[in-house]
Amino acid sequence: MKRVHNFSAGPAVLPLEVLKKAQEELPSYGDTGTSIMEQSHRGKAYSQIDAEAKERLNRILGLDDKFHILFLQGGASQQFMQVPYNLLGDDETADYIDTGRWSAKAITEAEIFGKVHVPFSSADDNYTHVPTSADQLDLTEGAKYVHITSNNTVVGTQLPTEPETNGVPLVCDASSDFLSRPIDVDKYGIIYAGAQKNLGPAGVTVVLVNKEFIKGQADRDIPTLLDYTTHTEKIFNTPPTFAVYMVNLVLEWVEEKGGLDYFQKVNNQKAELLYSTIDSDDFYRGTAKLDSRSKMNVTFRLPSEELEAQFLAEAAKHDLVALKGHRSVGGVRASIYNACPMESVQALVDFMKQFRSENG
Amino acid sequence: MKRVHNFSAGPAVLPLEVLKKAQEELPSYGDTGTSIMEQSHRGKAYSQIDAEAKERLNRILGLDDKFHILFLQGGASQQFMQVPYNLLGDDETADYIDTGRWSAKAITEAEIFGKVHVPFSSADDNYTHVPTSADQLDLTEGAKYVHITSNNTVVGTQLPTEPETNGVPLVCDASSDFLSRPIDVDKYGIIYAGAQKNLGPAGVTVVLVNKEFIKGQADRDIPTLLDYTTHTEKIFNTPPTFAVYMVNLVLEWVEEKGGLDYFQKVNNQKAELLYSTIDSDDFYRGTAKLDSRSKMNVTFRLPSEELEAQFLAEAAKHDLVALKGHRSVGGVRASIYNACPMESVQALVDFMKQFRSENG
Repeated sequence: MKRVHNFSAGPAVLPLEVLKKAQEELPSYGDTGTSIMEQSHRGKAYSQIDAEAKERLNRILGLDDKFHILFLQGGASQQFMQVPYNLLGDDETADYIDTGRWSAKAITEAEIFGKVHVPFSSADDNYTHVPTSADQLDLTEGAKYVHITSNNTVVGTQLPTEPETNGVPLVCDASSDFLSRPIDVDKYGIIYAGAQKNLGPAGVTVVLVNKEFIKGQADRDIPTLLDYTTHTEKIFNTPPTFAVYMVNLVLEWVEEKGGLDYFQKVNNQKAELLYSTIDSDDFYRGTAKLDSRSKMNVTFRLPSEELEAQFLAEAAKHDLVALKGHRSVGGVRASIYNACPMESVQALVDFMKQFRSENG
Repeated sequence: MKRVHNFSAGPAVLPLEVLKKAQEELPSYGDTGTSIMEQSHRGKAYSQIDAEAKERLNRILGLDDKFHILFLQGGASQQFMQVPYNLLGDDETADYIDTGRWSAKAITEAEIFGKVHVPFSSADDNYTHVPTSADQLDLTEGAKYVHITSNNTVVGTQLPTEPETNGVPLVCDASSDFLSRPIDVDKYGIIYAGAQKNLGPAGVTVVLVNKEFIKGQADRDIPTLLDYTTHTEKIFNTPPTFAVYMVNLVLEWVEEKGGLDYFQKVNNQKAELLYSTIDSDDFYRGTAKLDSRSKMNVTFRLPSEELEAQFLAEAAKHDLVALKGHRSVGGVRASIYNACPMESVQALVDFMKQFRSENG
């Protein structure tokens, strides 16, 4: 079985242990004689998977039962509209911090439902930096919530920590750094994350809804499926059962490895190894500003587009794949989520040094 | 590897050939060295899968390129609201034929957006029959569309063919009999189907949107993700890639077997075998009216609830599983979608005869 070093920005690499277990169990789950894909979402096996995954998230993040844990469909793109549909009344204001392409999309959808104020934007700076201190934020007093994108995959920036909002709940698109480090859950009204970067395959979105925050639902006629409260008490419609099964396996792996403290440490080490290689001279140039660099998506340029194309082609020959930067940025992007092993980062660094010595 | 006879109403049995291929390819797809789950939805491998699946649907159903083929998320429950959100203006009327629990849910969502008229309902008859002739339908002249549920999983009824609507386009929830028989596609404005019965695992919904019909979109501010036109020209956001990959394998299998004519023939044979066993004396009693019986979900009762419980318990010992009727109906339900092999139906019939001889 051939396996390569996979730096895809998403859908992204999964733990090999998880893939192997899924492979083994695929045609017959446990002693059921049917694939988990072929079983009712109200049956015993799936109900247990659903409950296990939720207990694991509760433990890993320290949610302390303060959140409804929902496995929804539609990705972060659905949450861009589902959040304001549920929570932003016509006359209410939400603050949206604009740190990239995905933040901007969230803003577009929120404007359909209520008032949006943008207390910070790095659009004029090609989104190469994020706010790193409170005085950069022009927050609205009494805002319903402050929306943040904790990590920005395109340019490769990441909020160093939760911004200070003076008690206004955060709503966070955490798709690309979910479970990569500890967070202060009490600051959040909603945390949502498409699974396909740090958590599992595409097709399921984890949505954590603070039980207090949801009490402030907007007074609006909302389709049943989009109403968060439809999903808080029971499984309403058929969930993406196989995707949730995979998420549960990944969560098991996260706990076995040592939880968020472990991943924060290893993710820091992986990022440090890459960034120090980039910074060691001026052949490679990091795309993001130093204080805004992401631990998940490491972006850099080479001296010319020709060298970048050559870099990507030679990297592929060394089984280092999916390194091409987002089309709007160019260059190289190495996505090094939780499941990207240190060995892959080391192989990339070795190749980078060799490439520089041959072409620098 | 243990495999049983699986009569689940959904998520339902998949072709064993498909499961085996998925198992083999799971950790490394083709020569890519990564799972198809770990690859970008804009990469070469997935783009090819997406295109192949669409070409296959076009061929199998004879769509003649008249439909946009969309792989969306959220199941039929999402389409209940997405259809009227897109197509039913505030002052427009749509006809909704009410043949069961799922039809009723579709009506609830449509009423949020426009005017709903119900030209037929069998609710007072516990949904045990469907309309079988045009004079049973009190249709609205100039309705925007007529919504039907082609097969009703709960009670086990099925429309024998498309109802006559005098040129008004049909919108069809075909989740539970999609690709089970040929249909007259020119009569349809939209056909949608959650994959988890006849088409693949849960987590993807096939939505076929007639290119002419979509021109009549309602004048309404609609979230980007819910607007059908967002998805007609390109892949907008990350699709449930593994589910679509599985759908493509199932479609390949459908074509290899012989397409809709083949499945219509075999599905008729399977249903005939079961219904003739039910009707051979009065120990088993079919739940649905004779002219409304489903070829997909065969529902029946036994002389007492005690015997039903005993039947289900003994069936499980014979590796005949997921036969319990829907909680709102009781009794027994054998779901025999495309991927349910004749051998499973034969095994069930053999058991039914034995059980009757021992308990009748």
